[in-house]
Amino acid sequence: MAHSKFKVLTFLPAWQWLKDYDSPTFKADLLASLIVIAMLVPQGMAYAIVAGLPPITGLYASILPMIIYALIGGSSTLSIGPVALISMMTFATLSPLFEVGSAIYIQAACLLALMVGIISFLLGIFKFGFLIRLISHPVIKSFIIASAVLIAFSQIKLLFDIPLKADNISSFIVSTWQYFPYTNIATFVFGMISILFLVLTPKLLNSAFFSKKVSSAVRSNLTKALPLILVFASILLVHFAHLDHLGIKTVGEIPSEFPPINMPYWSWALIVKLFPGAVMIAMVSFVESISIAQATAFQKRKNLNSNQELIALGLANIGAGLSSSFPVTGSLSRTVVNADAGAKTPMAGVISSIFIIIVSLYFTGLFRELPLAILAATIMVSIWKLVDFKPFFETWHYSKADGIAMWVTFFGVLCFDISTGLIIGVISTFILLLWRISRPHIAVIGLIQDTQHFRNISRHNVITNPQIVSIRIDESLTFLNANALMEFIIAEVSQNTLLKHVIINCSSISSIDLSALETLEEINEELLKLDIQLHFSEVKGPVMDKLQHSKLLQHLRGKIFLSHFQAVQELEAEISYSQTSYMI
Amino acid sequence: MAHSKFKVLTFLPAWQWLKDYDSPTFKADLLASLIVIAMLVPQGMAYAIVAGLPPITGLYASILPMIIYALIGGSSTLSIGPVALISMMTFATLSPLFEVGSAIYIQAACLLALMVGIISFLLGIFKFGFLIRLISHPVIKSFIIASAVLIAFSQIKLLFDIPLKADNISSFIVSTWQYFPYTNIATFVFGMISILFLVLTPKLLNSAFFSKKVSSAVRSNLTKALPLILVFASILLVHFAHLDHLGIKTVGEIPSEFPPINMPYWSWALIVKLFPGAVMIAMVSFVESISIAQATAFQKRKNLNSNQELIALGLANIGAGLSSSFPVTGSLSRTVVNADAGAKTPMAGVISSIFIIIVSLYFTGLFRELPLAILAATIMVSIWKLVDFKPFFETWHYSKADGIAMWVTFFGVLCFDISTGLIIGVISTFILLLWRISRPHIAVIGLIQDTQHFRNISRHNVITNPQIVSIRIDESLTFLNANALMEFIIAEVSQNTLLKHVIINCSSISSIDLSALETLEEINEELLKLDIQLHFSEVKGPVMDKLQHSKLLQHLRGKIFLSHFQAVQELEAEISYSQTSYMI
Repeated sequence: MAHSKFKVLTFLPAWQWLKDYDSPTFKADLLASLIVIAMLVPQGMAYAIVAGLPPITGLYASILPMIIYALIGGSSTLSIGPVALISMMTFATLSPLFEVGSAIYIQAACLLALMVGIISFLLGIFKFGFLIRLISHPVIKSFIIASAVLIAFSQIKLLFDIPLKADNISSFIVSTWQYFPYTNIATFVFGMISILFLVLTPKLLNSAFFSKKVSSAVRSNLTKALPLILVFASILLVHFAHLDHLGIKTVGEIPSEFPPINMPYWSWALIVKLFPGAVMIAMVSFVESISIAQATAFQKRKNLNSNQELIALGLANIGAGLSSSFPVTGSLSRTVVNADAGAKTPMAGVISSIFIIIVSLYFTGLFRELPLAILAATIMVSIWKLVDFKPFFETWHYSKADGIAMWVTFFGVLCFDISTGLIIGVISTFILLLWRISRPHIAVIGLIQDTQHFRNISRHNVITNPQIVSIRIDESLTFLNANALMEFIIAEVSQNTLLKHVIINCSSISSIDLSALETLEEINEELLKLDIQLHFSEVKGPVMDKLQHSKLLQHLRGKIFLSHFQAVQELEAEISYSQTSYMI
Repeated sequence: MAHSKFKVLTFLPAWQWLKDYDSPTFKADLLASLIVIAMLVPQGMAYAIVAGLPPITGLYASILPMIIYALIGGSSTLSIGPVALISMMTFATLSPLFEVGSAIYIQAACLLALMVGIISFLLGIFKFGFLIRLISHPVIKSFIIASAVLIAFSQIKLLFDIPLKADNISSFIVSTWQYFPYTNIATFVFGMISILFLVLTPKLLNSAFFSKKVSSAVRSNLTKALPLILVFASILLVHFAHLDHLGIKTVGEIPSEFPPINMPYWSWALIVKLFPGAVMIAMVSFVESISIAQATAFQKRKNLNSNQELIALGLANIGAGLSSSFPVTGSLSRTVVNADAGAKTPMAGVISSIFIIIVSLYFTGLFRELPLAILAATIMVSIWKLVDFKPFFETWHYSKADGIAMWVTFFGVLCFDISTGLIIGVISTFILLLWRISRPHIAVIGLIQDTQHFRNISRHNVITNPQIVSIRIDESLTFLNANALMEFIIAEVSQNTLLKHVIINCSSISSIDLSALETLEEINEELLKLDIQLHFSEVKGPVMDKLQHSKLLQHLRGKIFLSHFQAVQELEAEISYSQTSYMI
């Protein structure tokens, strides 16, 4: 019984908060959900446009996924739904295959969400969550910045009302050059005014004049609602000033209905085509939401199961795929707003989605006259904040390898496309990691006078013995670096003809793979032929367990010492004894 | 002046042995070269057949490459030339592209050697020798065994005189089934007798009867010359018994000439097609010969420059490509024989190649009536010795990861083809390495009574303090494993509500990449919110240098301790002080 209860608690975290749910908690959740809604409606529609889909699908993407995550997700404030980056990746996956906005394109977006969901779900079930860690911070940061640049550029299409291709920088430049003369001036002016409004109003609100009269909470909430205010203002303007006569494109007719729940069209051929994109979207969406969930877990002193997060995200995406929507993930900006606004439980997300259902059922007509350029303006302003080159220089300063990976990802995304850039970035981090592992730090060490400590002879003033060389390798031994140790010892042997003992200090060696073990056997064998003994010191327990039955220990004429100091003392005593007996 | 002399010595090691060359050395080299020749002639022709090429090209492959390596190579006894494994890889690269034995096939083999040479040469010049270490021992061992199985199977074609395809096991089984009824009985009987002769004669020679009458040196040299004896015996038999009337296929007419020196036919399209094969042949040929060169370097107490070996091997292959031949590398079997026979300098190789030139110019007619089945028999017998499954079980016993990589490679080669198998094997070792790195060993450690040593609490009986947790991670921190540390700490925090101090013991951490640094910053930040301090102990010099200017140290409220013992002592004193003051 206890066991089954434990299981329910693990797989359905909703149980924990639902059983203690009360009226004050509901009020807090309701308030938070209203503020999130004000952000979500324009963001959802805008990100649907980024994905090349009808704006309404952006609202659909916030309903089922949010409810599903509320029931099984690990974070109480994570706001799941459409996100700019994932929308851009959706666009990058689908646009080379189908005509943007066509019926098959929309169906493929649903199928893509379903596939992202199934992939995430299976990775979680089979505990492959660790695979997601393959993307390093510099790569993901650079990927987000470069994608933000591309997303901002891609909105120029709507701002200028010209048909642009913006998969990468070169196609963007070529098509801008080609279509620039056909710009719709009215749309452009309208868009620019919106951008100025979104950029300048927050500054105005924070200026000396307002900050005296209006409380900071009101100003902050007003800033968050600016896009929604802009949306309604522009709808009114279009409606009463009949701006559609100037050729300003609007969202147009939207059916007022519950998001259609059905299995998207699929075929094996289509699944194969979408597969690489789906894998990458699954990885990026997990990277995006796991860090948010981790911070929550920390503060609630709650153990986090990253595989369960993967399962929750997977089911949320399956929900998106089955409800005529597109891939979703946790949104950092909305999560922060949700938490700041006082959300207590995932019920805040459920309430948000109920509001969105109401909007979808009864109020879609409101958005018929919303100009697309307004949505483009909100995207541009929100996304441009992400474009920041400081991390490139900070990273470069800390580590050249991480810096290289960052620039490689950046140019990969801008010069090829968003997916190729990410792959190039990930591959570059691996090559750089393998490069580092294959060039381990190996030092000859000597005794510091009057201590038992050994240090690098090229960094410290230490005592050595010409017949003994002490070597420390600062890395576990693998096939990648064992040869470097061999070459190091060959070099030592070639320089020093007096040499009688080689001691390898193993304090930094946590594992030895078979290739390295065989290399050590070979080193021992070759040293024995030269009448030099090989010894080891400070071998860790698990490593010793493994060596126990190896040929290395059988053939070793040297010893294994607990401490390096003891090794050197004993071998020096042995040398002076043999020298004495030789002299006699 | 001293500098320029040094340069000559480095780039032309021949200088060192040529200046002291004398008559006794020449006699030793001459004798060794004669014994090597006895092996080389049948091996060369046989391996040319493995590569799908005319037997004479196997002799050509021993001339120019051997002379070039003698002048610039680092090992004095390495015998370079055709090798079964590389010949099989040549066949696997070329046979899907062209009809085996056609004029374009032969030209492509020369071009392949040239490309292998240029790739190796460039890798050496730009010091990319370390890239070769990407192939682990288990993978190369398994690759050799699986290739040996395929090579042995591929010779059934000549032994039965039926047209077989043997890229992989399934094509082999299908085509054997299909063509088996068309076996040429005379060829088959002839081949089987040869195999029995090669297998049984050494046993007979070592039997009680002969070992009394014949010295072991004579028996050993006789065993090495067996293939050559078989070759000449069968030529005589075919000539005088007119066995060609039975349909036994022979080598046929060979032009008696110096190997044609010319640039092979090439085009960019062809280079692109051959490129993947060339890269893999370059890698495997370097792996094969570097280990031989390393053992030599060790014994001569001579510093080995693996990049220079790569350059020498590259130039040898360029020589092969320009002299109507195919890819070559160091042969372990012939190198051992050469060294055992008393070769003193690389001059032994030069003498061998002069003999081969003489054979090519005047004695190719001898081999006109050599049955191909004889060559197939020598290949089968020599290659079957490599097929040994013991390493699979030994490896599995030592390490599951290495064992998996071995079986993956084995089945990859047998079920797909030789190149695909190698790639799958290499990729599997990387995945397993990354898997290991991403699951670092993390332990909570405690003090062993009456010492200053800290050990894993789950392995030893140690003293701990409920308000302090000491954590040791046995791996450098990278993007792959930093998250595991985070999850570990979240779990500790969730279990222990008394916790006030977390100390990370960094004695095994040799580097921290940016992703890991940011994860540590995040851990520190989240712990501070819970009023828990993060400390570090035993941080290595180079790691400390890097951390010096990081945000982590700026935001750290905890301390950095030189020794873990000191850390725990100081924090315990602090805790008891604050508790005392609280009680007052």
